[in-house]
Amino acid sequence: MTVFRYPRTIHFSDTDAAGVVFFARYLSIAHEGYEEALSDHGLPLEKFFADNGIIIPIAKSEASYLRPLVTGEQIVVEVAPIRIDDSSFAIDFTLWKTTPKEKRAAVIRTAHVCIDSTTRKKVPLPEAIDNWIGQSA
Amino acid sequence: MTVFRYPRTIHFSDTDAAGVVFFARYLSIAHEGYEEALSDHGLPLEKFFADNGIIIPIAKSEASYLRPLVTGEQIVVEVAPIRIDDSSFAIDFTLWKTTPKEKRAAVIRTAHVCIDSTTRKKVPLPEAIDNWIGQSA
Amino acid sequence: MTVFRYPRTIHFSDTDAAGVVFFARYLSIAHEGYEEALSDHGLPLEKFFADNGIIIPIAKSEASYLRPLVTGEQIVVEVAPIRIDDSSFAIDFTLWKTTPKEKRAAVIRTAHVCIDSTTRKKVPLPEAIDNWIGQSA
Amino acid sequence: MTVFRYPRTIHFSDTDAAGVVFFARYLSIAHEGYEEALSDHGLPLEKFFADNGIIIPIAKSEASYLRPLVTGEQIVVEVAPIRIDDSSFAIDFTLWKTTPKEKRAAVIRTAHVCIDSTTRKKVPLPEAIDNWIGQSA
Repeated sequence: MTVFRYPRTIHFSDTDAAGVVFFARYLSIAHEGYEEALSDHGLPLEKFFADNGIIIPIAKSEASYLRPLVTGEQIVVEVAPIRIDDSSFAIDFTLWKTTPKEKRAAVIRTAHVCIDSTTRKKVPLPEAIDNWIGQSA
Repeated sequence: MTVFRYPRTIHFSDTDAAGVVFFARYLSIAHEGYEEALSDHGLPLEKFFADNGIIIPIAKSEASYLRPLVTGEQIVVEVAPIRIDDSSFAIDFTLWKTTPKEKRAAVIRTAHVCIDSTTRKKVPLPEAIDNWIGQSA
Repeated sequence: MTVFRYPRTIHFSDTDAAGVVFFARYLSIAHEGYEEALSDHGLPLEKFFADNGIIIPIAKSEASYLRPLVTGEQIVVEVAPIRIDDSSFAIDFTLWKTTPKEKRAAVIRTAHVCIDSTTRKKVPLPEAIDNWIGQSA
Repeated sequence: MTVFRYPRTIHFSDTDAAGVVFFARYLSIAHEGYEEALSDHGLPLEKFFADNGIIIPIAKSEASYLRPLVTGEQIVVEVAPIRIDDSSFAIDFTLWKTTPKEKRAAVIRTAHVCIDSTTRKKVPLPEAIDNWIGQSA
């Protein structure tokens, strides 16, 4: 099992007036990790969307915000996909602070369901996605 | 029990290249409802933060994304706070599509914990917040 | 001439770690005013985009950031479109602080050019947009 | 003169329902380049803000949006600071598309003024910033 790791610097625009990253922004940062993991596997999100009549929206998310993050901070986003059934998968994200020592800043899970873009009924995941999940598991 | 209702128009900047509101953005929109509910109760978030050495970060969030939302769409965000213990509370948000008929677009729960801004230990919720939760319950 | 006025509350997610609205966010807020002005004229942005093979991207923006804005602050965005030529128009936005007394928080101008979505060549503005500009001038 | 170059991948959250990067987002991306350039010079923005009673807000911005950018696209942000006077400087940003060949996606200029955080009067730029501008010019 290879967990994909996406290094990320916290930007000023990620923060809010409390001086730290806005809670919803942790989910955007996790999604960047998903995009990078897919892209690393030869599956750029933009191609994948223009695909064959299917879309894979996020149906659920859960997040535990464990530590605040500030501008300039270096983090690593771990991206671990998990098969749920023929038409759906989850992703476990861990956002790691890297200094002074590695500590979890957040733990996030997203659930993704593959549907027909017209009928919006569940359909099996494309083989390429299946392959990506299999290789990561 | 009075549930606070916050009307909101979906903006172009809320959407992504899939043509609908980006999943993390549902949480930002819910947070706006929280700000409006507090403000309506005479508790503007900005005052409240400049307060007496306490902060109330979001510790957890859970979201079910039930229906896509598009630019120009009118929604209503329902905001229902729930006491958990002396130092924490949750908020149940329901995002309602309003046309053609009322349907749930998302259900979100956030958990908020009151801590000392220096020691980061749990402390009791300020009376004003307690009062807001009580009145809403 | 009727200048369209869009009231807006500053949200926590508009701010950054300096405690005030992030500079780029002033432009997003102005764009909301543009959407509301069009919608008020019966021209919802989302319809208008699904239109007849044309798009109207923003070609330029200029902004003077005159005063900081904080969470909870009430502002008004004035939206004044100006014809430039057959295929383009500008919009002058003024963001007004409303308390304690009305003062300009920012002055923004955007330039919009109507192009064919396939060839990306300039084409005349649709009559409905023309009409909106005329009525505002 | 060394122009700082910041490589950046376009994320899904940068885009809007037109399928391309939202115009205001170009400015956020440019600002990331500014943060990276300062950080590279040993001047992390977050330290710099906690500084000695001064702040350096953005007073103006100008942007020409030359080409659309899509999710997954690789760009480079060039960051070139220019002294204006004792208390202010500008930054010229060029956002470069990198494939299939290098083309400008946007040209942005921001103007920054150093002020006392209490009186909000202009004060001379800190030596470290001065030094950064000098070295880049």
